[in-house]
Amino acid sequence: MARYLITLQYDGTNYHGFQIQDNANTVQAEVEKALSSLLNEDIKIIASGRTDTGVHAIAQKAHFDSVKNKIPCQQISFALQSFLPKDIAVTDCMEISEDLHARFSAKRKTYIYKVFLNKINLPLYANKYYCYKYEINFNNLLKASEKLIGEHDFKSFMAVGSAVENTVRTIYSLNILLKDKELIFEITANGFLYNMIRIIVGTLLDIGRGRYNLEDMEAIIAAKNRQVAGHTAPAYGLYLKEVFY
Amino acid sequence: MARYLITLQYDGTNYHGFQIQDNANTVQAEVEKALSSLLNEDIKIIASGRTDTGVHAIAQKAHFDSVKNKIPCQQISFALQSFLPKDIAVTDCMEISEDLHARFSAKRKTYIYKVFLNKINLPLYANKYYCYKYEINFNNLLKASEKLIGEHDFKSFMAVGSAVENTVRTIYSLNILLKDKELIFEITANGFLYNMIRIIVGTLLDIGRGRYNLEDMEAIIAAKNRQVAGHTAPAYGLYLKEVFY
Repeated sequence: MARYLITLQYDGTNYHGFQIQDNANTVQAEVEKALSSLLNEDIKIIASGRTDTGVHAIAQKAHFDSVKNKIPCQQISFALQSFLPKDIAVTDCMEISEDLHARFSAKRKTYIYKVFLNKINLPLYANKYYCYKYEINFNNLLKASEKLIGEHDFKSFMAVGSAVENTVRTIYSLNILLKDKELIFEITANGFLYNMIRIIVGTLLDIGRGRYNLEDMEAIIAAKNRQVAGHTAPAYGLYLKEVFY
Repeated sequence: MARYLITLQYDGTNYHGFQIQDNANTVQAEVEKALSSLLNEDIKIIASGRTDTGVHAIAQKAHFDSVKNKIPCQQISFALQSFLPKDIAVTDCMEISEDLHARFSAKRKTYIYKVFLNKINLPLYANKYYCYKYEINFNNLLKASEKLIGEHDFKSFMAVGSAVENTVRTIYSLNILLKDKELIFEITANGFLYNMIRIIVGTLLDIGRGRYNLEDMEAIIAAKNRQVAGHTAPAYGLYLKEVFY
């Protein structure tokens, strides 16, 4: 038996998220089907984590075990192209130690979130950017974001209904870049609560727009209550960029 | 009666091109339907020119005449959003003189063509970039492109079967930018033959890849024969960027 780590890129628009489920089109189901066809063996993959409906991945990681495979690693990406739909690709494949686990061995992850500041929703940015129609004060947004860096209880930034008990996470970096009308958030943490990035981005945009004050951010964190944070930015602006082991 | 000039942005992926036709989903049909609903009047639009299936527009121009309209111009874009699908938007609207005609008054147009240099087709670039898997010599490509600038008979770069008789056009500028793996062509001319940009891009890529020599470009132009030029790059990398009046 050998274990392989694959890098996946996908456009999440047409999938009900990453994780396999009955009667739904999922990224995992497509990748398992393609790998099973190529390797002529029943293959199950384990990803670094699930992504929600509409969320994209630049470089998701997953591992799988194969008993039979004889195809060299560097040929697997090419060979899989004809088995996968246009919106999913395996961009890399490497053999790894059986001790390594795509989910449990992941130490931190980087996501990016893309916003396009424009009064009208633009077709060429649809499903890939959150078109935000309000004017923002970028300096306020930036200053508020600094309060989030480090170890905090992020319960205010977790979707209601999530069953997670320990809501403490560490954000290692949160970089925000404004270039013309493009506003890009890049956030690296040791883990993320359910909808955490989307609520962080929504709250920062609400502060930038002036619905909340810059000074409110500390109180929002301290409240440990989803109700006090801002809106949840839509899934389609979010991309899993990198998983670190 | 008043005449209006609108700016259209669209993702051409899901349309059978711009121009209205029976039993096909077209951009023109969607825009006419939306305008007719909003203005409560039968509206026909005339664009600067058609775009093919899969071709996008950053800023296509079209005009229409209205007898009844009382909605101020600056509100039309917003109001149309709820009548248009996500992949089409009217980004601007202005009242113009009745002498102006979106097609016949157009003096020149700028298109861009987007290539992504990568061995594997990448999902996040699908339908928006031509993923090109061969290594290219950028300097050769650039030098060959210079031969195309100016007034030439571009018959070698016109799709077979086109009925146009005068195949002389003037390319005012052809800028090519390579940034990491992104290769962007920007081309401005007084007019374009059928598939002209896609054949130019395909031929330049063929030269960059080494299928043709840099020196072949002059002979390709001189031949006035589609057979001697390179391949036709796919429609989905092409964007109508600007129309000048």
